Amino acid sequence: MMNANNPSLKSWVPVPEGSDFPIQNLPFGVFKTTERSPRVGVAIGEHIVDLAALYDQELLLGIELPSYNLFANDSLNEFMALGRGVCRQVRERLSELLRSDNEKVSHDEELKKAILVTMHEAEMLMPVKVGDYTDFYSSIEHATNVGTMFRGAENALMPNYRHLPVGYHGRASSIGVSGHPIHRPKGQFKDPDDELPSFGPSRRLDFELEMAFITCKHNPQGDCISAVDAEEFVFGFVLFNDWSARDIQAWEYVPLGPFLGKNFASTVSPWVVTMDALEPFRVKGPEQNPKVLPYLKTEGEKNFDINLEVGIKPEGSEEKVVCHSNFKYMYWNINQQLAHHTINGCDINVGDMYASGTISGPTPESYGSMLEISWKGTKPVTMKDGSERKFINDHDTVIMRGYAEKDGVRIGFGEVKSKVLPAKL
Amino acid sequence: MMNANNPSLKSWVPVPEGSDFPIQNLPFGVFKTTERSPRVGVAIGEHIVDLAALYDQELLLGIELPSYNLFANDSLNEFMALGRGVCRQVRERLSELLRSDNEKVSHDEELKKAILVTMHEAEMLMPVKVGDYTDFYSSIEHATNVGTMFRGAENALMPNYRHLPVGYHGRASSIGVSGHPIHRPKGQFKDPDDELPSFGPSRRLDFELEMAFITCKHNPQGDCISAVDAEEFVFGFVLFNDWSARDIQAWEYVPLGPFLGKNFASTVSPWVVTMDALEPFRVKGPEQNPKVLPYLKTEGEKNFDINLEVGIKPEGSEEKVVCHSNFKYMYWNINQQLAHHTINGCDINVGDMYASGTISGPTPESYGSMLEISWKGTKPVTMKDGSERKFINDHDTVIMRGYAEKDGVRIGFGEVKSKVLPAKL
Repeated sequence: MMNANNPSLKSWVPVPEGSDFPIQNLPFGVFKTTERSPRVGVAIGEHIVDLAALYDQELLLGIELPSYNLFANDSLNEFMALGRGVCRQVRERLSELLRSDNEKVSHDEELKKAILVTMHEAEMLMPVKVGDYTDFYSSIEHATNVGTMFRGAENALMPNYRHLPVGYHGRASSIGVSGHPIHRPKGQFKDPDDELPSFGPSRRLDFELEMAFITCKHNPQGDCISAVDAEEFVFGFVLFNDWSARDIQAWEYVPLGPFLGKNFASTVSPWVVTMDALEPFRVKGPEQNPKVLPYLKTEGEKNFDINLEVGIKPEGSEEKVVCHSNFKYMYWNINQQLAHHTINGCDINVGDMYASGTISGPTPESYGSMLEISWKGTKPVTMKDGSERKFINDHDTVIMRGYAEKDGVRIGFGEVKSKVLPAKL
Repeated sequence: MMNANNPSLKSWVPVPEGSDFPIQNLPFGVFKTTERSPRVGVAIGEHIVDLAALYDQELLLGIELPSYNLFANDSLNEFMALGRGVCRQVRERLSELLRSDNEKVSHDEELKKAILVTMHEAEMLMPVKVGDYTDFYSSIEHATNVGTMFRGAENALMPNYRHLPVGYHGRASSIGVSGHPIHRPKGQFKDPDDELPSFGPSRRLDFELEMAFITCKHNPQGDCISAVDAEEFVFGFVLFNDWSARDIQAWEYVPLGPFLGKNFASTVSPWVVTMDALEPFRVKGPEQNPKVLPYLKTEGEKNFDINLEVGIKPEGSEEKVVCHSNFKYMYWNINQQLAHHTINGCDINVGDMYASGTISGPTPESYGSMLEISWKGTKPVTMKDGSERKFINDHDTVIMRGYAEKDGVRIGFGEVKSKVLPAKL
């Protein structure tokens, strides 16, 4: 175990009970304030450590960083490109600087003022510049639910499902960060009984509860990444809301897959939780049957035990949690996803994003989309104000949260939160 | 008509009979030589005009350019971002400088040496940095052929086909420029009679003859681009080879569309032919029946009469042309593609690329892929060396060419050419 993960560590920075950001987490993000231009920061408790200031204070000496302040930057891409080793050095150093017995730092009020920002005075920005974005479909429960609804229980899973991690390319440009509202998309849809398609604002706007990993290493075109080496390429994870317009998607998606039903917006959480911080939460994935082809073979604990939840907050009312799921349910793990993605020689780059697909568990309370929760609109959910939801209404706010917990340490993702505004005229 | 398009213009730069690059074309690209770092150039005859040198020589004064030399650049993105108006000013200026009666330039040997490079001493680079890449499916002949092969003539076209321009997101990272070889992709495939999928190099590697347009203007998330305004966003076109592994694609593509069957490589021609240069070649598209929804309505000539051909050159043998097609066959025009793409508020950026989908015409000799030409492998094509092709063999070179011609003026795209190397071990 790395020192930074030691569960007995405490920080001189106050970390409230139940915080997602103890000294064992140290996730990376990009923020700005009225005084500070965009820069890389690390979350601890209710504060952000300003890494650009830390660099200027010469507190990162000895780490293999370039000769300029690469933390004075509006994305993590340059930092991630240094690889997981450098990231580990920075986390270890932060752990040293922030631990409660570091009196040199904890007693230096001027230094603390220079390097710490309170979260409420900062605006979180999109943490990475996404080159290409891929969305997988790796929860077998989700694929089974959707297949059952549209093709019946007999034909729920497509014949390829247990042989390869199905995925498709999504839109990188429209991925935004938590806190920004989205507009209800307009488009074409056709009810089965209608002769012609209609046009208007989507009537079945949905969320999809997903997680996404981000790559920190380039793989040249023509080469493959083995399932064993895959984790070297993974910097960390965010929560990912893959907004979906079910009616638009249903009409458009044959034969080439989702397009306008998805590409109007996706929303991610601002803090990238590192692979290293998640080490203690590894678990075995579901048994894969039939056996996978050799290039997809992995051994050991490749899934992660991360609790996930989704809440809907109607305008002027309280939030209702509508889903409790877990990242450990994934049928295909990230090593397999990356090995499959590159088996044909597809090149990958620093900053590429790979979402999991909707993460549904085995029980209805763990379903990760309103499509499944309301079972295609047949089982509405009652909000705390008594109103019902089959899908997402205008002015609703959708909130996703995630955390792993063990030995009294909680490694959290914060939240991804976004409000739905009416369609633009 | 702009002056630059005047068919009677001649240049003092020699332009051989049948050249794709007369003074009326002036397409933009990015090149380097042993002496010159990557920079923007314009093709004329067998030469390249070095725009960075032209800027340094103060020959672009009076044009609304920034105060630094933005042509000393490894992509067209910054230049394109200035919009179609500035591009037009640059083409008009080039037309003035290069016309045969401009004695000031044509007699200045030193100046000519500074601004002209012969094509054979230059290496062409990828002309744009592609943000997002979309592939449409807009040739009704292609969609009908593929549908007939896989679902029978009765169900050839999906019900949505005549109501919206079907499209999907592709991989931006693996788009490369003409001249670079590609490796045959490996992957999973399953013959109908097999119980389990196999793994190995694709046995059905194919080209798809496409054209792609490139956007030069940002549209904010949540906004739509009207079919009328769409052309303001379009800088120009390239030829596009959408390499496809038919066996991988057939097994993976349900239910979310093409992924590894496509994302290993795409190849584009290096010269971006501007919308302005193509003005004289506008034609009406096919009649659309049923009528399209109002947001997709266009009037006038929105298609382009561009002759296209594909050749296959086996190693050590002559090239055989296997397809003559035309861009005018597109059922959905680019205005409709862009209006549809953004009707849900999807944001677009400078440098995004939008391929047409395979451009097949009504007759077998105009089919734009080996899948159609060999009708799923049932009608092999004989090469000039007597060998047969159902799909593309290792060491074959695939070459695509395109040009428009009218009033003695030929506006060409040059070629997109790439050799297939065996799968990497």
